[in-house]
Amino acid sequence: MLALTPTPPYYAVIFSSLKNSADEGYAEMAEKMEKLAERQAGYLGIESARSGLGITVSYWKDLPSIQRWRENTEHVLAQQMGITKFYEQYVVRVCLVEREYRFNRSSAYDK
Amino acid sequence: MLALTPTPPYYAVIFSSLKNSADEGYAEMAEKMEKLAERQAGYLGIESARSGLGITVSYWKDLPSIQRWRENTEHVLAQQMGITKFYEQYVVRVCLVEREYRFNRSSAYDK
Repeated sequence: MLALTPTPPYYAVIFSSLKNSADEGYAEMAEKMEKLAERQAGYLGIESARSGLGITVSYWKDLPSIQRWRENTEHVLAQQMGITKFYEQYVVRVCLVEREYRFNRSSAYDK
Repeated sequence: MLALTPTPPYYAVIFSSLKNSADEGYAEMAEKMEKLAERQAGYLGIESARSGLGITVSYWKDLPSIQRWRENTEHVLAQQMGITKFYEQYVVRVCLVEREYRFNRSSAYDK
């Protein structure tokens, strides 16, 4: 599902990662973190894909919401687990979304 | 490969998409567009993953670079092809990258 984010401005956190071969417990952890993120104040949506490289983009109302999520206790534990067990490399980019354009085939042909 | 982007600020274009089942010519087009993007002025890097949902994030020096890439003739044709042939839905988000954090296992254990 593409995230139904509001009219900009809002924030995006782009998490790009290269995993190692340790998969045990990874999918469960990733799913748990997505569900936990959804319950945070200021959460706007999430999009995730993996094919070799993994990209998860979470969307947030503002920087304090991102800061709170970053410091969430369960999330901190997952971040540590990511470093000790799962990731070879990752980059986190915190971004201000300035503009958004959408295409939807069904609404394109409705009009 | 994770993109070796410079110290922020710089720009990111997050392209999130849901494809239809038409695959003929898609991989070739996507690869051609990545190679073409690499040759544009202001291009900083690209990251791409697909598993159901597709996410491609391209990184750029500034907004004029993004504007030029958006209007590039071959890219305009590919965008039209995407709309008529390949995508059910997509969202393009233009973002200012304000902060970046990296983890690299090998450098983590070197230090």
